[in-house]
This record gives sequence, structure tokens and C-alpha cells, in this order.
Amino acid sequence: MTRPRPRSLGDVGEHAWLASLIPRLRSARRRRRVLVGPGDDAAVLGAGDRPLVLTTDALVEGTHFERGWASPRALGRRAYRVAASDVAAMGATPIAALLAVTAPPSMSARDLTGLTAGVAAEATAHGAALVGGNLARDARLALTVTVLGEAPGAVVRRSGARPGEVVVVTGALGAAAAHLANRRANRRAGRRVRLPEVPDRAAVGVALAGVVSAMIDLSDGLSQDLGHVCRASGVGAMVALADVPVAASCRRRFGPAAPAAALTGGEDYELLATLPPAALAVARRVAARHGVALAVVGRIVARPRGVRVVGPDGRPWTPARGGFDHFR
Amino acid sequence: MTRPRPRSLGDVGEHAWLASLIPRLRSARRRRRVLVGPGDDAAVLGAGDRPLVLTTDALVEGTHFERGWASPRALGRRAYRVAASDVAAMGATPIAALLAVTAPPSMSARDLTGLTAGVAAEATAHGAALVGGNLARDARLALTVTVLGEAPGAVVRRSGARPGEVVVVTGALGAAAAHLANRRANRRAGRRVRLPEVPDRAAVGVALAGVVSAMIDLSDGLSQDLGHVCRASGVGAMVALADVPVAASCRRRFGPAAPAAALTGGEDYELLATLPPAALAVARRVAARHGVALAVVGRIVARPRGVRVVGPDGRPWTPARGGFDHFR
Repeated sequence: MTRPRPRSLGDVGEHAWLASLIPRLRSARRRRRVLVGPGDDAAVLGAGDRPLVLTTDALVEGTHFERGWASPRALGRRAYRVAASDVAAMGATPIAALLAVTAPPSMSARDLTGLTAGVAAEATAHGAALVGGNLARDARLALTVTVLGEAPGAVVRRSGARPGEVVVVTGALGAAAAHLANRRANRRAGRRVRLPEVPDRAAVGVALAGVVSAMIDLSDGLSQDLGHVCRASGVGAMVALADVPVAASCRRRFGPAAPAAALTGGEDYELLATLPPAALAVARRVAARHGVALAVVGRIVARPRGVRVVGPDGRPWTPARGGFDHFR
Repeated sequence: MTRPRPRSLGDVGEHAWLASLIPRLRSARRRRRVLVGPGDDAAVLGAGDRPLVLTTDALVEGTHFERGWASPRALGRRAYRVAASDVAAMGATPIAALLAVTAPPSMSARDLTGLTAGVAAEATAHGAALVGGNLARDARLALTVTVLGEAPGAVVRRSGARPGEVVVVTGALGAAAAHLANRRANRRAGRRVRLPEVPDRAAVGVALAGVVSAMIDLSDGLSQDLGHVCRASGVGAMVALADVPVAASCRRRFGPAAPAAALTGGEDYELLATLPPAALAVARRVAARHGVALAVVGRIVARPRGVRVVGPDGRPWTPARGGFDHFR
């Protein structure tokens, strides 16, 4: 008899592993200072007069980007915005950021300074500051940004969605999915395809926090991230594929398949929120003040749990893939 | 004419690059919330009634460890202690930790759970909590731990050392240098050499904060880290090689060369502090209450700047290497 091989991350998948881990960290929530533990966009801590939020996110060469996809400065800016997106989704404002870099010795000092300047400039532009970090050697470049934020009011969690509420998203989706497809098509041609900019949703996130019941940032794709909200809230959701706002680059790339790509593609970093229909007009005015459009993409239901998508023909529609998972 | 090749991190070195970067981030210090910006063991933020400290540190496979040097759980514990060491050096207590992991898909889910459990258990044992993190794919395993702490009193900076003060270190040094040398010797024999445990200096750091003028954790080696204190304080230091407390494993490995190895070897994670001679007896009592010995290794002087070492013969002694740098 052979011993069974232990299951790898590739077997289990990122999200299934995280789902198994989070209950084990339950004790974290019993600490006096921990208002929200693992499993939301960011942790929430009570250490002052206002709730503090704390989150970390990484951009890894070969996984999230390749050299030449963005200038060092743009990559630094992206790393900051990706991490700050989780702070916005809690309805909080960044105070301070840390940047941990791993880099190969062959990397130019100027490029590393450019990366750091990108993080610092973006933090400063949002009223925060790059206050520290770490530098270590590795074969590949990776940027891990931690952001500490502060909520001016109550934080918005994933668990607040209630049946009857509408589901809204900011901006338009699918630009990152289009980039991925364009990149594949251009690889043989040797053309460089720049990463789409991560939208700046810092201000609108805080502004919406007073109006919405639940919020999450779209890092893994609308269908998957709305699934996270449904699970945390103990509800279901119906999404109309025809109502998903589609980015122009996504429409160009995918044509009639664009709404499906926008629904399932990751890394858009727009915000998804749920709110009572009566609050929709207020939410739209609040978002418009920040130059951001809100689109209603669906509705929260009591049953069945999980996300159901309705196609343009009114029939149930099943996505070919469920959203991004690092290990599947 | 050829354009000069841009200088790489390997050309410039970690510490020289950081030294060039930190003045560029000066604007961070002008932010209302930022009490201490980049360049100390941790950043200090004013966001509540007590100062908050924030720091991040990474353990990278192939740089800081290899598989088999420690169990996943021990590696997680180490990653936490290495990051928390910077919090202790500020005289602060951890509240919350984040763990960002990059891992290959081939890694077993059980090992990743073990790593995470190690971080969580160590955080919990210190009254803190693992409240979140990130998981991404990469070719190698890396653990980046961020710790948010709170100082019960004033924080202790690197810049507080004054001429006439004594220089003390906790515990004994050189165990990590001995491990490195043992590992090289055992590599061909195929024997696994376990990483030495990072000492737990969380409580003694906070206790010493009320007594000492400057403090730093020893991650890059006593001579180099004392150099950081001297630069930040605008002073010099004299160290007596014969007074450096040497770990037993270091003495076994290096024999008569052990004090030099203990002086320059990195990754000991003991604390170095400076204090007026009159406060030494109190500091020793405070440390002893936490089961920690304090050794006087030298004295702060006004001039010359920098660290001078006196050998056992009373003559100036120059180390063969200056301490750890990731890129030199």
C-alpha cells in the first residue's frame, strides 16, 4: 500500500483552501481589539476612536504581471491601488502604507526607486503616506503592499446584503479580461500590451459606505465576488447578464461574448455593493459626485443561495469559468 | 559610444539603496498622522490615544530558508517573530498581524495550513491575532508578515543614543551565523540543519522601553545595526569584542573566531539598546524579570562617528565583513 500523496494547492484551489482556513482562525475574532477578523476585504480593529482597517495584497511577476507591461512607476501605483481597493470596499480611508519588495540582484536600482516612487506618490495623492517596508532578494520581482486605513463611520462588510436589495457595480467591467486575451494574441507578435489602469475608487467607496448594506471590491470577477457576498450574508443573488456594464476594450475584444467576459473576468477593482432599492437614487447621486457611474446588475434573493445568472434570452446562464483562482 | 548600464541592486547593495531612498520619502513624515516615517525599526502613527507602530518583514525560500530547515509550523512562527521583533524594538505590543504568502501550486495544502497555524499561534500567544492576509502563486515560497502594534508609552527610536551611554544587548549572539556555517559544512553530507529559534523579546522590549534611550533589533548583525543607531543619533560607538555575549552554538562552531562571528552575523533578533550608565542596574532588573540577560558591549561616544571595535589585545579590530546585505 502506498501512502496517499498530500493534496496540493493545485488540487485544492485558492478559494477552497481559504474557506477551510478561516474557521480555524475564529479565535482571532475573540480578541478584544478585533472587530472583523479574516474573511472580509480587510480586517477591522478597534485601537482608537475610529475603526482601523488593515489589508495586504501582492503583485507577483509571472503571475500578475510581466516586465514591460507597465513602467516601474505605474506598477508601483497599481500595487498601491490594488491593496487600497480593499480599504475602499470597507468604506475606509488609507492612512499609511508599507511596501515589501522581493527583487533579483540584476534589477536596476533606478527601476526599484521608480516602483517605490509610484507607491509613495499614489499614497500621498490619497492623503496617506508610504511609511516603511522591506527589501529582500528573490528570483522574481514581487510587491506586497499593506494599507492601514480608518473608517470615518461604520465599516461596510460583505455580510450585510438582504433579500430585496439591488446589486450595483461602479464603472465598467472586463478591461482586465480583455488585456489578458490581447496579451495572449500578441505574445507571438512580440508586441507589448500595457496593463489597464486600476480605477481609483478610494473616495467613492467612503462616500457609498453611508448608503449601502454590503460592499466588496471586484478582484476575482463579479460572479465569484458576488458569491462571496452571498455566502457571508446567507442570501442568494440573481444577475442579469445584459445589465453588466462592459468596458469598451472588452466589447472590442470579445464582441457578443463581452458581457460573459466582464461577468467572470478578474482584476477590475471596481466596487460591488448591495442596497435597498429606495436608496438607489441617493447612491447614484453620491457616486456621480465622484464622477463614477453605478449600474444595477441584479437583485438579492432569500433562496436559492449562491449566484444565478440570467442570459439575454431570459434563461439561466452558466459561466464557462467561475472567476480567478491562483491555483486552479 | 555605449550608454552606461544602469546600476543594478547587486552593484548598489540593499543598505546603500535604502539610504538613498529614505530622504525621498521625507514627505511621508509631514503627514499629520505619521509620527515616525521610513528609516526606523517600524513606522509610528497617531491614530488613537496611543502611538501605533506598523512594520513588515519577509522570509523568502532560497534567501532566508530552504525546505526542510524547519517544519511549516516553525517557519510560520519564525516569520511572525522576525516581524514582531521590530515592534518590540520600538517598545510596542502587537495587536494584529497579516500574512501574505506566495507559494507554488505543488505545495501541499497541509503545509500551507501548518505555516498559517504557526503565525496564528504565535500571534495569539502574544495577545495579538492573525486577522488577514493574501495568497498568490509564485515559483517559490515566501511569507511576508505585517504587524500592527501599540505602544503603552512613548516609542523608542534609533535616534536617541547620547555620548556617555552604554550599549547593551539581550541574550547571546551568533547562533544564526553558526547555523549558516554548519549548513555549508553539512550540505555535501546531505544532513538537514534546523534553523535556530528566533528569541521571544516581545515582553522585554516593552519593559525596557521605559529605561533605554535608543533601541534596535539585531537583524543585520551587531556591528551594522549599531551603525544604524549611530547614524540616526549622530554619534559614534566603541565596542569591545571580548564583551560580546556569544551563543554556545557559535562558540562550538567558530572557536576563537566566535566573538567576531557573533559581532557581524545577522538574523539573531536580539535587542540592542543604549542607556545612561546610571540606569543600567534598573535595566538589568527589568530584563531579569523576563528571564533575559543584558550584556554591556560598548559605549556611545561623540566622535568619531560610526562603530569602532576594540579587539582582545586592546587594539582596533576591523571585521572581515560588515554584516548582512541582501544584494552584496
